[in-house]
Amino acid sequence: METGANGFTVAAVTIKDQPRFAWRGLLIDVGRHFIPLDVLKRNLDGMAAVKMNVLHLHLSDDQGFRVESKRFPKLQELGSDGLYYTQDEIRDLVSYAHDRGIRVLPEFDTPGHSGSWFVGYPELASNPGPFKVDPEAPDSVTDPTREGTYKFLDKLIGEMAKLFPDAYFHIGGDEVNGQHWDKNPKIQAFIHAHGMKNNQDLQAYFNQRLEKILAKHHKIMVGWDEILHPELPKTIVIQSWRGQESLAAAAKQGYSGLLSFGYYIDLMWPAARHYAVDPMSGAAATLGPTEKSRILGGEACMWTEWVTPEILDSRVWPRTAAIAERLWSPQETQDLNSMYARLEQLNWRLDWLGLTHRTGRFQMLHRMTGTDDISALRTLADVVEPVKDYARMDSVKGPWDFRAPLNHLVDAVSPESDAARHFGAQVQAYLQSGSKDQTAETQIRALLTTWRDNDRKLHPILDESFLLHEVAPLSEDLSALGVAGLQALDYFDKSEPAPESWRKQQLALVDRAKGPKANLLLMVVAPVEQLIESSAGQIPKS
Amino acid sequence: METGANGFTVAAVTIKDQPRFAWRGLLIDVGRHFIPLDVLKRNLDGMAAVKMNVLHLHLSDDQGFRVESKRFPKLQELGSDGLYYTQDEIRDLVSYAHDRGIRVLPEFDTPGHSGSWFVGYPELASNPGPFKVDPEAPDSVTDPTREGTYKFLDKLIGEMAKLFPDAYFHIGGDEVNGQHWDKNPKIQAFIHAHGMKNNQDLQAYFNQRLEKILAKHHKIMVGWDEILHPELPKTIVIQSWRGQESLAAAAKQGYSGLLSFGYYIDLMWPAARHYAVDPMSGAAATLGPTEKSRILGGEACMWTEWVTPEILDSRVWPRTAAIAERLWSPQETQDLNSMYARLEQLNWRLDWLGLTHRTGRFQMLHRMTGTDDISALRTLADVVEPVKDYARMDSVKGPWDFRAPLNHLVDAVSPESDAARHFGAQVQAYLQSGSKDQTAETQIRALLTTWRDNDRKLHPILDESFLLHEVAPLSEDLSALGVAGLQALDYFDKSEPAPESWRKQQLALVDRAKGPKANLLLMVVAPVEQLIESSAGQIPKS
Repeated sequence: METGANGFTVAAVTIKDQPRFAWRGLLIDVGRHFIPLDVLKRNLDGMAAVKMNVLHLHLSDDQGFRVESKRFPKLQELGSDGLYYTQDEIRDLVSYAHDRGIRVLPEFDTPGHSGSWFVGYPELASNPGPFKVDPEAPDSVTDPTREGTYKFLDKLIGEMAKLFPDAYFHIGGDEVNGQHWDKNPKIQAFIHAHGMKNNQDLQAYFNQRLEKILAKHHKIMVGWDEILHPELPKTIVIQSWRGQESLAAAAKQGYSGLLSFGYYIDLMWPAARHYAVDPMSGAAATLGPTEKSRILGGEACMWTEWVTPEILDSRVWPRTAAIAERLWSPQETQDLNSMYARLEQLNWRLDWLGLTHRTGRFQMLHRMTGTDDISALRTLADVVEPVKDYARMDSVKGPWDFRAPLNHLVDAVSPESDAARHFGAQVQAYLQSGSKDQTAETQIRALLTTWRDNDRKLHPILDESFLLHEVAPLSEDLSALGVAGLQALDYFDKSEPAPESWRKQQLALVDRAKGPKANLLLMVVAPVEQLIESSAGQIPKS
Repeated sequence: METGANGFTVAAVTIKDQPRFAWRGLLIDVGRHFIPLDVLKRNLDGMAAVKMNVLHLHLSDDQGFRVESKRFPKLQELGSDGLYYTQDEIRDLVSYAHDRGIRVLPEFDTPGHSGSWFVGYPELASNPGPFKVDPEAPDSVTDPTREGTYKFLDKLIGEMAKLFPDAYFHIGGDEVNGQHWDKNPKIQAFIHAHGMKNNQDLQAYFNQRLEKILAKHHKIMVGWDEILHPELPKTIVIQSWRGQESLAAAAKQGYSGLLSFGYYIDLMWPAARHYAVDPMSGAAATLGPTEKSRILGGEACMWTEWVTPEILDSRVWPRTAAIAERLWSPQETQDLNSMYARLEQLNWRLDWLGLTHRTGRFQMLHRMTGTDDISALRTLADVVEPVKDYARMDSVKGPWDFRAPLNHLVDAVSPESDAARHFGAQVQAYLQSGSKDQTAETQIRALLTTWRDNDRKLHPILDESFLLHEVAPLSEDLSALGVAGLQALDYFDKSEPAPESWRKQQLALVDRAKGPKANLLLMVVAPVEQLIESSAGQIPKS
C-alpha cells in the first residue's frame, strides 16, 4: 500500500509467486541473552513482512535455560538469571506466530552447550560440579552413558513436545567438548565396552537414543552438522553451520538439510555478502535433482553473545530481508544494486511494525553522551561498523562475561553503514567522470567538510563520558580523512597531480585509520584512499 | 543518574522533599479511543518518573465500554468495537501501577455519557432505542426512575469494586443531557410525584442512590462538578472541570475536591499555561485552612476525541510533567524559564521509558509522505501546533466520527513547538541588543533561509499525498515569512528603516499566516511580525 495523491493506493496487478524453498527461517538465540516476548513478537511481524516461515528459538545454552518446565523446574529456576518464558507465554508466542504463517521450532541444545541444565540437575553432567551460571564456573557436557539421562530427556521432551506443536524438534548437538568425556574413566569404559571407536561414536549413540525418544513423542529430529552419522534414520534434518559441502554430503546420504553457513547475522557482514550465499551453490550445485530436493531451505542465525533486547532489532533488520529474498526468489536474481534499492525501501517501512532497528540506537547514543545533543556522535556513528566475524570475541581478555553491559558505540551502530556505502558510490562516480562530475564533487566536499569539523565538536563530549573515551582515536581519524580528502579534491581542481611526499603522508594516515579501534571500523577509509591515489596519479582536468 | 567521565554518577546529596498535594493524577479517556495495555503501562512509567500517583481511567463513554464484565457481558461485547480490557488485564494493570506507587481510579460515567451501556441493555435508557455505537445512532441517558437501574448498578459496581481495589470510585455525573428526561412522560411524572423541582434534583436523587450502593461496596464516590448537591454526604469528592470557583464552593460546603480545570491536556495549551494554574489560586486562595485542606490535588485530563494509541504519548508528554510539578512543588515555584529548562531535560530522558512522544511522529510523517525523506515536512512540522481549545471539534461538519482515521499533519505535530519558542527567544534577544547581537542574527538568518527554501522542496511531496494537500498554504506562508524576515534583517544591516509600503505588504502576509489552516497554527508568525515592525521603526545600527 502506498500513500498517493488521491488516497492510499494499491497497484492493480496479478502476482504469481511462490517460494523456492519451503523452509525460510530465523534463529534467535534466547540463551545467551534473554529476549522478551514483545521483542520476539515484533520480529515475528518483521518475518511475516518478508515471508519467512520458521522462527527457530535456541532456548537453552550455558548461559540460561529459557522455558518453564513444570516437570523439572530447577532447569529454569536455577539454570537462568530468572529470565525465562512461562508455558503460557510460549503458547501465546506459538499462537501469534501461527497467525502469521510462521512455525516455531524449539531447540534444546544437548549434549554440549547445556551447562545451564546442570545447575539444578548435576547428575546429568560428565563431571561432578557443583555448577552455576557464571563465566568462571566449571564447564561440562551431558553424560550419555547413564540411563537416568535418557529418562530425564524422555520426560522433558515429552513435556516440551506438547508445548511446541511443530512437527520438528531441534536437539542442537554442536561443538561437544570431548575433554569431559576423555577425563571421565566411567565414560571411557562405556566407550570400550560398547565397541565404540571414539567420542564421535558416543555422540552418535546418544543421538540414536534421543531420536527414538523424539519419535516416540511424534517429533522429527533436527540438529547441527555434527549429528550426521550413518546410524541415524534418514528422516532427520541436518542444519549446516559448516557450509554447502556438508549440506551436499548429507543430501547424498539421503538426509534433508538446511543452510545456515553464510547466514550468521551476528558476524556483522553486509547484506550483499549474505545475499550472495545460496543453498544450491558450491558443492550443492553438483547434486542430482532428488538430492537437491532434500535441501529444504535455510535459516538466518542471530546468535546473541553481543546482543541484548535493546540491540537485537538492529542486528536482525534489514539484513535478514536479503536472506529471506535469497530463500524465496530464483537463484539467478543476484543484482546487488537492485537488492539494495529494495532493501532501503523496506528498511523504513519495517518501522511500522514497531521494530526499533532504526530508532533504538538514538537512545543508546543519548545514554553515552549524557545529553540530548547527539548530532556529532551520530556523524561518527553513521560511518563506522562493528568489527567482523569473531574479532570482538577474540579481543576479550579472560572468559567472555555474558553479564557485562553492552552499552558502547559498537553496540549502537548499524552492522552496515549506508552512509559509507553511498559515499563510496559517489567517489566512484566522481572518479569515473574523470573528476568532471561537479554535483558529485559538491556532495563529496560537503561530507568531507562535515567530517573534518566533527572532531572539534565531538571531542569535548568524548572527554565527558567514560563510555566514549575509547572512540576518540576514531573521531580523530575521521577528521584527518576529511582533511586529506579535501586536499585531494583541491589537487583535482587545480588540475595538478598531488606531490609524492603528500601522497605518502596521507597513505600513512589511511593505514592507521584502517585498523579496528574500540571494536569499530571506519568504513570511509577506502574511498578516501581512492581519492588520494587518484589525485596523485591523475589525468589533469579538461 | 548521569553519564560521567569516569562512570555513571549519582550526585551525593541529601534530598528532603514531600508533595504539596496527596492526589496527583492523570486521567486517560479509554472510552473515545481504546488505549492498549502496553501504552498504558509505559505511561504509568512516565507518571512514576514525575511522581504522579493516580491513574484515572475513564472506562466508558458513548463510544465504548472498555472493561470486561462477567455479570453483564453485553456491556463490552455490544458496547464497544471489540476493544476492551479483560479482567485479567485490569488486574495486571493495577498491580503494575501499584508497584510504581500509583493508584488506579476507575470511572464509569453515568447517567450521561453512557450510550455504550444501552446497546446491550436498552432497558437502562430514558428512550426506547434501539441503540448502537455509532456517531449517527440515537443518544440517550440513564433512566433514574426505574428500580431495575439500581439493581443493575449494584451488581455492576459490586463486580467492578472487587476488580479495582482503590478506595475511590468515580461515577462521572457530568453533562447530563436533560432533553431525554424532559421528553419521557414517565420520568416527568416521577419528578412531580417525588416533589422534585427539576432534572438537577432527579440527578441528585440518582447520585444519592448511587452513593449508597458505593458505600455498600466500601467505595468513596468521586464525580464531576455536577454531582455537588447538599443532599450528598460530605465524604464524596468533587472533581472540578469548571474551575477553582466550584472547587472553593465545594470546599466551603465541606466537600473534598480535585482540580482538573486548566489541566485539560487535550486543549493543546503550552506547558507554561498549565503550569500557571494552581488549585489554591483564584477563588480557592480566599479559603480558610480547614477548607483548603479539603483540596486534595488535581488531575491532568487526557480526553481522547483526537487521540489514538499512536498519538497519545505526544499529547501527554512532556507537558503533563509541568502539571505534576505544579501539584508537587510549592505554589511560589513559578519561574517559566526554569520550568522549561527542566522540561527539556526531562523530555528526552522520558524516551528511556519507551514513551514515543518524540519518535512516534516520524512514522506518521513517513506515512503521510509515502517516502523515507521527511526532512522538508519536518521543517514545517517543527514550527506548527494544533489549533487550541475546541477549535478542531468546532470545525467538524456533521457529527464527530470517532472511527475516522487520525492521520493528518495536525495529529503528528507536537502540541507545543519548541523550535518556535526558541526562535521567538532568539528574536527577542536580537531586538533587545539593538540588532547588534551578531550570533543571534546568524542563527535567525539560518532558520529564515531554511524556511524560505522549504516550500520549493516540500511542494512536490504535498502534491503527491492526499493526506498533505491541505497543508500547502501553510508551507507557502512559512516560506513567505522566511523571505519577509530576511528582508527585515537586511534593513537592519543597512541601518535604514524599512519603507512603509513594504511594511504594510508584509503585515498583510502576517495576517494571512496567523489564521488556522488544516487545523494547524504557524507558531513563528509573531516573532517575524516583531522583526518587520522593528525594522520599520528601528533605531539605526551603531
